[in-house]
Amino acid sequence: MTDFAKTRALFRLPEGVIYLDGNSLGPLPIAAEARIARTVTEEWGRELIRGWNTAGWISWPRSIGDRIARLIGAEGGTVVMGDTLSIKVFQALAAAAALRPERRVILSDSGNFPSDLYIADGLVTALGRGYELKVVAPEEVEDSIDDSVAVMMLTQVDYRTGRLHDMASLTARAHEAGAVTVWDLAHSAGALPVELARCDADFAVGCTYKYLNGGPGAPAFIYVAPRLAGVAQPILSGWLGHEAPFAFDLDYRAGPGIERMRVGTPPIIALAALDAALDAWNGVTMEEVRRQSIALSELFIREVEASCPSLTLASPRDPAQRGSQVSFRHADAYPVMQALIDRGVIGDFRAPDCLRFGFTPLYIGEAEVLGAVDVLENILADGSWDQPQYRKKAAVT
Amino acid sequence: MTDFAKTRALFRLPEGVIYLDGNSLGPLPIAAEARIARTVTEEWGRELIRGWNTAGWISWPRSIGDRIARLIGAEGGTVVMGDTLSIKVFQALAAAAALRPERRVILSDSGNFPSDLYIADGLVTALGRGYELKVVAPEEVEDSIDDSVAVMMLTQVDYRTGRLHDMASLTARAHEAGAVTVWDLAHSAGALPVELARCDADFAVGCTYKYLNGGPGAPAFIYVAPRLAGVAQPILSGWLGHEAPFAFDLDYRAGPGIERMRVGTPPIIALAALDAALDAWNGVTMEEVRRQSIALSELFIREVEASCPSLTLASPRDPAQRGSQVSFRHADAYPVMQALIDRGVIGDFRAPDCLRFGFTPLYIGEAEVLGAVDVLENILADGSWDQPQYRKKAAVT
Repeated sequence: MTDFAKTRALFRLPEGVIYLDGNSLGPLPIAAEARIARTVTEEWGRELIRGWNTAGWISWPRSIGDRIARLIGAEGGTVVMGDTLSIKVFQALAAAAALRPERRVILSDSGNFPSDLYIADGLVTALGRGYELKVVAPEEVEDSIDDSVAVMMLTQVDYRTGRLHDMASLTARAHEAGAVTVWDLAHSAGALPVELARCDADFAVGCTYKYLNGGPGAPAFIYVAPRLAGVAQPILSGWLGHEAPFAFDLDYRAGPGIERMRVGTPPIIALAALDAALDAWNGVTMEEVRRQSIALSELFIREVEASCPSLTLASPRDPAQRGSQVSFRHADAYPVMQALIDRGVIGDFRAPDCLRFGFTPLYIGEAEVLGAVDVLENILADGSWDQPQYRKKAAVT
Repeated sequence: MTDFAKTRALFRLPEGVIYLDGNSLGPLPIAAEARIARTVTEEWGRELIRGWNTAGWISWPRSIGDRIARLIGAEGGTVVMGDTLSIKVFQALAAAAALRPERRVILSDSGNFPSDLYIADGLVTALGRGYELKVVAPEEVEDSIDDSVAVMMLTQVDYRTGRLHDMASLTARAHEAGAVTVWDLAHSAGALPVELARCDADFAVGCTYKYLNGGPGAPAFIYVAPRLAGVAQPILSGWLGHEAPFAFDLDYRAGPGIERMRVGTPPIIALAALDAALDAWNGVTMEEVRRQSIALSELFIREVEASCPSLTLASPRDPAQRGSQVSFRHADAYPVMQALIDRGVIGDFRAPDCLRFGFTPLYIGEAEVLGAVDVLENILADGSWDQPQYRKKAAVT
């Protein structure tokens, strides 16, 4: 059994803060401080260029990828780190579309994170030739899969409401229709058990600064199913995905398997932080995290509904249909969230009217859930959220 | 006048090492250690998600871009940070090609860094429709520019030999023929005066881990000329390049000017390191750096040619035709370089037969140049490079 008091002690959590926004940016794992300092001062500082060999930097995108593979139900050797999630969406999407050259439709849904849709739009425009991005409502995805669809691109957990797609059944349905799948795991990796191999997913991508606590702008990952890794063509064919990067040949030859999805020089300091952050998952199973996440989310919903009548649940009520977050609607969600943050309860606002709260059992427990509800109840009851300073929009909301 | 003894004191240079590889990976700026620790412990650790606003993270790609703009002869507000150089090559190339939709040729040369050619190859394959990458010898570029060329993509300084392209005349020639230019500044930014605005360059990209000392895998930059920044379409249309990222609209609308070249969430810890590294350039002019770089390079060539008869100069002899590096050919360049590194003189090997040495006046002076030649002379004279352990290839060469 995972002792969540122990995992909690691995994080630096500021006094006076209840942090329900680990689904936007995970908190600082204490081990990351020393690990980053070591990479900076000892590896970069003393080894200089030699660090690529002596500290093993060159292989970190694969070794860290393997650590993440375990958390998303993937085989070893199928995940590699690098770039941002948006770039990895582009790469997976382009590679997937190229596997079905006679088809022209990329199917997605309106619950997808906007950047995924923007990236798809950019790709479709560049490809021309009748390529098309088709965006339907989340509940219409299944019925929209037909033999025109080259790629079905979905984010498993809706960033706004937490609604969870059924990866197994949608992947099976897509495969029946001959389509290739790209799953975005931004709000699933580290949040709930993901079973890429069991679901027979084709491509998956995700970020590591949310539930995986890798730090602001931490590197993304990409998964390619072993049966496709040797045939998929990376449109972003950078030198580190080459079969022999240091031969400096003029012609590109894709590297073996997942290696080819590497692009440029990997971000070493950021990878050091992420590697340290992943230590918190040692000995933790996603099943235990899921059980605790559901317990905390259910408690939160029950308490909020009992004490905050002006809020409406925006997330699915059935925990099996939800990720590890709960959202409530309020016409003035923005100032309400600012007032909450001002009182030390950090969640976030998602336009136009969502208060979003993430539940991250590694460092959040019942006491925080009850404390957060208490503050929320008070702010709504006394109307203290309704002040001009809380309506002022920040650059990042 | 720049006092190079003062700039040198800003770097951590290990005892017993003569570092002539700052053109691969710049050394650790001492200020980066505290700056990274501050961003990790105080900003990420205490501010958590609020750091995007309170620490101003969201604007770092622009503010740091402005600091680099000064070093590459660019106007303020024309440079933005993010991704790797390979990704930025892809983005610039795709945007440039889209500005000449009726043309199909991307012209480059065989002295370009292979990753740039690989990326162009990936783009051309994806675009289809007769797009073609044409690679000529460096000296044939000028005569190969005709009205079939959509984009001329060149690296200003040859990574292997240091040969310097004439940016002003080639850009003018490309414009006469109606082509758009993409300049890769990997080996020029921080190495010599670059005059993007004066040369009327269209797009430029570069990395920051070489002469700019940003650390292993530090973020890349992209420049777009102001006259194009509002019309160029970023094919990599990620959310942070959107006009209103936090509106979470389903449709992409490119942000104003250079903002649209942002893609995903920026790598904050890496940007903190880079920002600290750029402090070393305060009060330094590129003209002074260039003068000193030429003095050191000329000294090195003179001394090596006088004492190492088995080496042949691979770089242009005229300093006006060279970047800030000098390469010599040797049939056994690989083991010779390993023996040099073993004796504390760090340069690098570039396949098939180049010994490459970078001259970086911020922290390298005459004493290091003479010391390096001394070791090189000894190794070649006594044949001590010819040992099995020096022939064993490392993962990164």
